[in-house]
Amino acid sequence: MSILSAEDRNRLIVAATEAKEFSYSPYSRFRVGAALLSTDGKIIKGANIENASYGGAICAERTAIVKAASEGIRSFVGLAVTSDVASSIAPCGICRQVLREFCALDMPVLLVPADYPQPGAEGDGGILDTTLEGLLPHSFGPEHLELPRQS
Amino acid sequence: MSILSAEDRNRLIVAATEAKEFSYSPYSRFRVGAALLSTDGKIIKGANIENASYGGAICAERTAIVKAASEGIRSFVGLAVTSDVASSIAPCGICRQVLREFCALDMPVLLVPADYPQPGAEGDGGILDTTLEGLLPHSFGPEHLELPRQS
Amino acid sequence: MSILSAEDRNRLIVAATEAKEFSYSPYSRFRVGAALLSTDGKIIKGANIENASYGGAICAERTAIVKAASEGIRSFVGLAVTSDVASSIAPCGICRQVLREFCALDMPVLLVPADYPQPGAEGDGGILDTTLEGLLPHSFGPEHLELPRQS
Amino acid sequence: MSILSAEDRNRLIVAATEAKEFSYSPYSRFRVGAALLSTDGKIIKGANIENASYGGAICAERTAIVKAASEGIRSFVGLAVTSDVASSIAPCGICRQVLREFCALDMPVLLVPADYPQPGAEGDGGILDTTLEGLLPHSFGPEHLELPRQS
Ligand SMILES: [Zn+2]
Ligand SMILES: [Zn+2]
Ligand SMILES: [Zn+2]
Ligand SMILES: [Zn+2]
Repeated sequence: MSILSAEDRNRLIVAATEAKEFSYSPYSRFRVGAALLSTDGKIIKGANIENASYGGAICAERTAIVKAASEGIRSFVGLAVTSDVASSIAPCGICRQVLREFCALDMPVLLVPADYPQPGAEGDGGILDTTLEGLLPHSFGPEHLELPRQS
Repeated sequence: MSILSAEDRNRLIVAATEAKEFSYSPYSRFRVGAALLSTDGKIIKGANIENASYGGAICAERTAIVKAASEGIRSFVGLAVTSDVASSIAPCGICRQVLREFCALDMPVLLVPADYPQPGAEGDGGILDTTLEGLLPHSFGPEHLELPRQS
Repeated sequence: MSILSAEDRNRLIVAATEAKEFSYSPYSRFRVGAALLSTDGKIIKGANIENASYGGAICAERTAIVKAASEGIRSFVGLAVTSDVASSIAPCGICRQVLREFCALDMPVLLVPADYPQPGAEGDGGILDTTLEGLLPHSFGPEHLELPRQS
Repeated sequence: MSILSAEDRNRLIVAATEAKEFSYSPYSRFRVGAALLSTDGKIIKGANIENASYGGAICAERTAIVKAASEGIRSFVGLAVTSDVASSIAPCGICRQVLREFCALDMPVLLVPADYPQPGAEGDGGILDTTLEGLLPHSFGPEHLELPRQS
């Protein structure tokens, strides 16, 4: 796993928490904030933006990724995700797949509880530290589309 | 239909064309750029960001909308969309639905050909001028979810 | 517009109503049923299947289309959609787009109120009769991906 | 992990391979077939159904799930997935998320190479044997939406 500095960890946690304020989630009432740290040190924030047609919802993580990618930022060193619940909520599978397109499998992912830092929690105040591969093993990616077909 | 000033039309056309440069479309090789104009005069750009799992693709129009909404910008007065083809390409249905959540039905939508302004074209150099309702009649929106159920 | 016989209209309305019973919609509590009539006379039913990650929801119309297409049925002459509300609820934009791949623009679409037939309603008991093009004007389809790029 | 009988494994492998024949994948030219085995012994097949708007694509696994769920079948004991490539291709994240709604985390998932059985391959002819949890650790599911919000 790549290592984030304490400062970068903190920047990501703060940014994800700020990002959550702009969640548009009238249907789920489940606010999520996400923040990406790019290789060149920029923070890109995202929040979940829901839709009356539920399938049109775009989560916080995907909002952050397309925001970055559409501004030419496509190399990342870390992701933090937070919500309003006192657990480490993980990205949905859709977001894991979209992250896979641009992020290395060993990119650190911080799943941050709403009440971070939790007193007495193990590790860093209740954060679940994982990686993209920790969330999406045996992933499907661009290289698979290049494989020769047998028929 | 609301009316855009010539200056605002021009800002949208230029911004959509610039946005297209950041398209990530290795699978379709179909670059799209979009630009929204917010009620308070801001331009928000988006490009299509594709994914190896084709279903994970997010179009230019949705990228622009979630970028804006996740920064607290949720009121818009116009949209322009352009691509690399010499026709006025319209948003897909998915994007029409996501726009519906935040945009008025009479919001102007400019569908801009790649070679705008087209010499000798009718109207404004080949632009197809429409509205959100012109693209999504009988639309499904947040108010329908509130209707009383019969069973 | 193509014309459906009274018998085919009735088959579609009955099937969409039956299909609704299998809706999985614990999040929206908005049940939808859809039915397609294939060119060779088969009825294919669909219901909306939601997901905890709201974006993973698949509507009734798309369920019907992928069910048919994955069984080799790809030519259709009509669609009916119904819900639990006393209005003619129209497909979301996502479904309109997915229908576009397989259905002719003039394919009849029947939007059926929950309490059909509504006494005293205009036309056929409160049904809103439209077509795919009536729901998705200026549509984006397979042929656009074939257009030459200008750059 | 739950255990599938040799007969059930075989039924799933054969069904996924058959399902692939109905793939509609003119854009990716990447055919995928999937098959689910329900608790009451039914096989439900799915194929990937793509769309000119790439984001409208629905994969084989999701096709199978919505087909089953919309017919009232919502309890499953196994899944097999196959494609046209000589590797064990895994479901995309979107499909993992949609499977999560209905399938137990320990449900067996068989990732079957196109040239199964591969001579000399380890295990069962080149199949990668995993589970839903093996594909979607730390998953997000319906129970998380029920958690109390902190603000
Ligand atoms: Zn997500
Ligand atoms: Zn679109
Ligand atoms: Zn829909
Ligand atoms: Zn998939």
